[in-house]
Amino acid sequence: MKKFLFYSILFIPFIGHAQQDLAKYVKPIIGTQKMGHTYPGAVVPFGAVQLSPETDTLSYELNGKYNGDVYKYCAGYRYEDKTIVGFSHTHFSGSGHSDLGDFLIMPTQGKLQLNPGVASDPKGGFRSAFSHQNEVAEAGYYKVKLDDDHILAELTATKRVGMHQYTFPKSDQSHIILDLIAGIYNYEDKNVWTYVRVVNDSLVTGYRQTNGWARTRTVYFAMSFSKPFVKYGQKNYDRKQAYKGFWGKFDQTKNFPEIAGKQIRMYFDFKTEDQEKVKIKFAISPVSQENALENMRAEIPGWDFEQVKKQAKEEWNKELNKITVNTSEDDKVNFYTAMYHAFINPTVYTDVNGQYKGLDQGIHETKGFTNYTTFSLWDTYRALHPFFNLIQPSRNNDMVKSMMAHYDQNSLKMLPIWSHYANDNWCMSGYHSVSVVTDAIIKGVYNGDPEAALAACIVTSNRRDYEGIGDYIDKGFIPAEKSGVSISNTLEYAYDDWCIAQLAKKLNKQDIYQEYMKRSGNWENNFDSSTGFMRAKMADGTFQKKFDVMSTHGQGFIEGNSWNYSFFVPQNPKLLIERMGGKQKFASRLDTLFTMHLPDEFFADTEDITREGIVGGYVHGNEPAHHVAYLYNWTDQPWKTQSRIRMILKMQYKNAPDGLGGNDDCGQMSAWYIFSSLGFYPVAPGSDEYSLGSPAVKSAVLKLENGKTFTVDAINQSDKNVYVQKVLLNGKAITTHTIKHGEITDGGKLTFYMGSKPAK
Amino acid sequence: MKKFLFYSILFIPFIGHAQQDLAKYVKPIIGTQKMGHTYPGAVVPFGAVQLSPETDTLSYELNGKYNGDVYKYCAGYRYEDKTIVGFSHTHFSGSGHSDLGDFLIMPTQGKLQLNPGVASDPKGGFRSAFSHQNEVAEAGYYKVKLDDDHILAELTATKRVGMHQYTFPKSDQSHIILDLIAGIYNYEDKNVWTYVRVVNDSLVTGYRQTNGWARTRTVYFAMSFSKPFVKYGQKNYDRKQAYKGFWGKFDQTKNFPEIAGKQIRMYFDFKTEDQEKVKIKFAISPVSQENALENMRAEIPGWDFEQVKKQAKEEWNKELNKITVNTSEDDKVNFYTAMYHAFINPTVYTDVNGQYKGLDQGIHETKGFTNYTTFSLWDTYRALHPFFNLIQPSRNNDMVKSMMAHYDQNSLKMLPIWSHYANDNWCMSGYHSVSVVTDAIIKGVYNGDPEAALAACIVTSNRRDYEGIGDYIDKGFIPAEKSGVSISNTLEYAYDDWCIAQLAKKLNKQDIYQEYMKRSGNWENNFDSSTGFMRAKMADGTFQKKFDVMSTHGQGFIEGNSWNYSFFVPQNPKLLIERMGGKQKFASRLDTLFTMHLPDEFFADTEDITREGIVGGYVHGNEPAHHVAYLYNWTDQPWKTQSRIRMILKMQYKNAPDGLGGNDDCGQMSAWYIFSSLGFYPVAPGSDEYSLGSPAVKSAVLKLENGKTFTVDAINQSDKNVYVQKVLLNGKAITTHTIKHGEITDGGKLTFYMGSKPAK
Repeated sequence: MKKFLFYSILFIPFIGHAQQDLAKYVKPIIGTQKMGHTYPGAVVPFGAVQLSPETDTLSYELNGKYNGDVYKYCAGYRYEDKTIVGFSHTHFSGSGHSDLGDFLIMPTQGKLQLNPGVASDPKGGFRSAFSHQNEVAEAGYYKVKLDDDHILAELTATKRVGMHQYTFPKSDQSHIILDLIAGIYNYEDKNVWTYVRVVNDSLVTGYRQTNGWARTRTVYFAMSFSKPFVKYGQKNYDRKQAYKGFWGKFDQTKNFPEIAGKQIRMYFDFKTEDQEKVKIKFAISPVSQENALENMRAEIPGWDFEQVKKQAKEEWNKELNKITVNTSEDDKVNFYTAMYHAFINPTVYTDVNGQYKGLDQGIHETKGFTNYTTFSLWDTYRALHPFFNLIQPSRNNDMVKSMMAHYDQNSLKMLPIWSHYANDNWCMSGYHSVSVVTDAIIKGVYNGDPEAALAACIVTSNRRDYEGIGDYIDKGFIPAEKSGVSISNTLEYAYDDWCIAQLAKKLNKQDIYQEYMKRSGNWENNFDSSTGFMRAKMADGTFQKKFDVMSTHGQGFIEGNSWNYSFFVPQNPKLLIERMGGKQKFASRLDTLFTMHLPDEFFADTEDITREGIVGGYVHGNEPAHHVAYLYNWTDQPWKTQSRIRMILKMQYKNAPDGLGGNDDCGQMSAWYIFSSLGFYPVAPGSDEYSLGSPAVKSAVLKLENGKTFTVDAINQSDKNVYVQKVLLNGKAITTHTIKHGEITDGGKLTFYMGSKPAK
Repeated sequence: MKKFLFYSILFIPFIGHAQQDLAKYVKPIIGTQKMGHTYPGAVVPFGAVQLSPETDTLSYELNGKYNGDVYKYCAGYRYEDKTIVGFSHTHFSGSGHSDLGDFLIMPTQGKLQLNPGVASDPKGGFRSAFSHQNEVAEAGYYKVKLDDDHILAELTATKRVGMHQYTFPKSDQSHIILDLIAGIYNYEDKNVWTYVRVVNDSLVTGYRQTNGWARTRTVYFAMSFSKPFVKYGQKNYDRKQAYKGFWGKFDQTKNFPEIAGKQIRMYFDFKTEDQEKVKIKFAISPVSQENALENMRAEIPGWDFEQVKKQAKEEWNKELNKITVNTSEDDKVNFYTAMYHAFINPTVYTDVNGQYKGLDQGIHETKGFTNYTTFSLWDTYRALHPFFNLIQPSRNNDMVKSMMAHYDQNSLKMLPIWSHYANDNWCMSGYHSVSVVTDAIIKGVYNGDPEAALAACIVTSNRRDYEGIGDYIDKGFIPAEKSGVSISNTLEYAYDDWCIAQLAKKLNKQDIYQEYMKRSGNWENNFDSSTGFMRAKMADGTFQKKFDVMSTHGQGFIEGNSWNYSFFVPQNPKLLIERMGGKQKFASRLDTLFTMHLPDEFFADTEDITREGIVGGYVHGNEPAHHVAYLYNWTDQPWKTQSRIRMILKMQYKNAPDGLGGNDDCGQMSAWYIFSSLGFYPVAPGSDEYSLGSPAVKSAVLKLENGKTFTVDAINQSDKNVYVQKVLLNGKAITTHTIKHGEITDGGKLTFYMGSKPAK
């Protein structure tokens, strides 16, 4: 053993420099079944292009009403499906609402069919049957056999360019379809306008402008074929076309190079030899067709698909190698797939020339940073951005700069809520940008102007006409008569205000600190001491009569009932415990949460998750309770944090297509997994402390951007040894159940000694 | 007398430098009644902004069918109407189809009304009654009293900025309405998208994107108020709005600064004292909101309405002074109003920073020229561009460069047909860009690459899939089975091909010259020698059986019957005369044309004109016969050209709102007036010769850009003395009835001696 250890030590620095192939552990298929809402296609870290198959493109509406099934297709692909309708270039990873699905491409051969057809009869349209046996999904690469037309489809990507490789059989009727109607969360009027310009026989450019979750969104593209098409054409499905008379001067359906309309599908025809590969480079840009072309030329100058695929894998390995773990093969899959999912969103939103579209719909140029979009902040402020502060600080610095640019360009004068593609869709509650901004400054990651950042946080928090903020400021709570989500909002505003207070304190703004500390106590206004639960309050100050701790709707919450939300005071667990009757009572309430049964009627009420997404009454598939298992650390029973965490890690993250118990939520669920696997978690971002849990890895080495490494060792680690007996930081015992950010970034070693019994 | 003359001579150079106030003769109201389709609002020469009242904004459709009345509102304003619905910023001048009408603004006070209301009940909406007594329309200035709310509206403009000045009564409910739904040739789906950003309490920016005559058109704006509004709001009339749920986070109807949708009206509220003036600067840009703002700041930095108005008038005077005429006061009105109408279109389509949107929908920067748009070429190649070659050569040089840029950016590889706002609507027949390009090169006006220009002409003329060009090339005519306008096309292509031949000859391309001279003879294929008329030909080479020389539709023509179109061989009148049986027979056919009676059924068939727009069977209100009166010069009876011209000048151009007999067609009708008033006309642009007519002025001085002056004197001029007795150029007699372009640009004097009887 000693000899072996000796070799290991010798090898560590060597391994540290050479990259391991950790990408092999990434299984993009995890989460594609049931509620994970991930996608299996090709993407590079934080890539603007997410090139992935769509198994269906449902309409948002069915017979004039909201089509509930559309929700299942947030990521375009469902593992359960048997047909693929095409491959599109933009996807959210794990979101709970959706948009995107731009520029669907499908290869076919034989008789040209321009309708997608239905799943029950794939041969009736351009879609094709496929099977998972003939499907490969890897980091940066996706392959599938399209059974109907015997075409092998392969996809890979760079940051801004998707590359397709289609292997055709011999056919003089091979087609590539470009469907500009298709989209995710689609509906009849979602396409505001689409435009295509056939520049020559192998280059096509254009744009798609939509009115969807993002109200005003335009994506430009440039599409280059490895082989000239012999002919092409379009069909316009617009309900009505303007001034068609003059358009009759040409036959615009065939070989007509200027195409525009709201509902257009195009085809490009080829003759192919048996096993001939036709490749496509498809670049996107938020700014212009020209920029898309520039992105393409910069990122994929040639036609070597294998080289692009290799490069995508190398990019992933570079990111994945920032943490090397020693754990079971299965857990390595879970860990690196979590790393993969954590490193997809936010996405790059700058062209290679530095231009991007701002929230003011104008073209801007980044000065010294990469602009990012896709901020699912209600989710990701909790663990994903803190994780970035640790392991991707440069990127998180740029993300905060992107948020500040959003603020500067926003006529509403608010930091982003849920923003994507130069729009805010204001999804979910709170103004959690302030948490991300504060956490980045507190942890020394943000190198922009902290005074300007504080000012932006303050202005955002005083936007009185947004979701009850006016009442919140005036009364300290939001009257239940005025809002269906009054408690969620109040609790989350209170936490956010605490973040602002921390930032003010750091900048020595005592007045602001005091003001916001006071606001951060507003959670108490919704705390009903007679029941010990958060409870909706009426304008007159009395609690809402109808009270049900199990129910979400009608009780003032979103994605969580009072049982879960009552624990949402991450900024002050100590006082919450006091209000809830002390440590013992509090711990036993936590016990109840994790062991109770949530009847079906209330489960249905808790949106967005599967039955697997809950543990007792604890809802892990949604975010509001993500910190809750760590709260035992504030009681006298921290070992329960340890066992709960290990249980959640096992139950909620599995190496299987349905391995995620809820939406991955743009990486938040995955970031929870990574932190918790490593043995610590940021209960209250904005603080520089992590709360200790129970590591699931045997060991881990974090390679920090500052050149230092931080090692986590779990001695006597096993599935049964979930209890921490003692913890040493660089050889010194930790008794606080916390570790500071700076203690990690200074480099060093955190050693957990594990055992099968609580160390009471 | 001698003494007086002596003084006159002394004063001439002095007057030549000091500008006369010729703008006072401009009556923008001429042509606003009946079929002129001009507008009375404020514009500067070639200005991108045409700020003018709309008396109605009809829908293109009524009960699902084309609404014939919409045609009357091509320019938004009809003199006959009694109400004004608002003031919008873009208008075509005298067009026969339309678009534009962007950004309608209306001041109101009292109860806010956001619907425009109907003409019969103006108080039921935001429109207002007005009367012509309270209306002033001048070059660069428009004023009207809005009776309903006792508001005085005044408008002026710079190139890219409209300036409004509204004098309100005392009211705490004064409103400025910004109607983004309104438009010309409007219909439900014309607005593809509109976007408004309230930057602060006195600055608003945004854009309007439409799918109209221009398929894909976006106009950006910046709107600045002289006084902060106290509140604002919007109403969204969209049939359906996406994901409205999340939008409920704000009250988006009031004081919400990010507005987007397809059908939006906004209001801005003020408190006003009695006689308080609220001013607006409204800038537009084809590129971006930012550019619009830059245009505004560059062109109207301050708030001095009177100064902007004065400057607009000065700009007009500068242009009008390029020709000074001595004629009756009434004819001065006609002449300078014609000059005014001639100098409105094409319009500047470049921002102050040199950027513009190209036909590829990308942003381009002009290098050394101003980019123009609004090319109504079927009309304007005839006399307007030739007039520019004489009196606005720098601008016409830039216009040809704009056409070449259009070609370079056009994936269709064609020079413009009828282009506006980075689109081609391909209205009318022919490819008359080649005439404009050739004429500019032949006359030494174009300083770009002539070889590239010739190449563009050739490629355009070989676009086989455009309006029968393939058949035209293969057969020398377009089969009547395939096209309803087969003859118009063939005749016009043949003339255009002659232009290309002239250009090739100039560039010493003998092969191309021969090829295109051959093509230019294709008119003969539609000439039926048995009837002496142009007649539709079938694919098998036989003439169409059903033949009616009076009828337009079904006979192969557009905007002209065989009687008019049979004379359309401007490139070779000599041969046409021969084919028609010699000079005598030809002259008597011309006589018949001018004296025949066109029965009502055939008049209805000839589109776009009023009864006043015809002289016998000669249709002056449309363009195809504009050269016809000059054809007597090729016979032995040139005096008939002289009398006909004088008669047309009198009949077709009057100092009255209904003074124009047909659409002014972006200045073509006016250019005809100017040339003909001066005594010469370009029968075949592409040739350097003008055909002489009968001047209507007593004298005229043309101040050329090269610093030289050219004087026309008509000795013994009077209404009765319409016949030219002799003509001297610099003292030497002209016997050819022609004058060369170079003879004018060399400077000098053309002296007509007039008499009451033909000089046979």
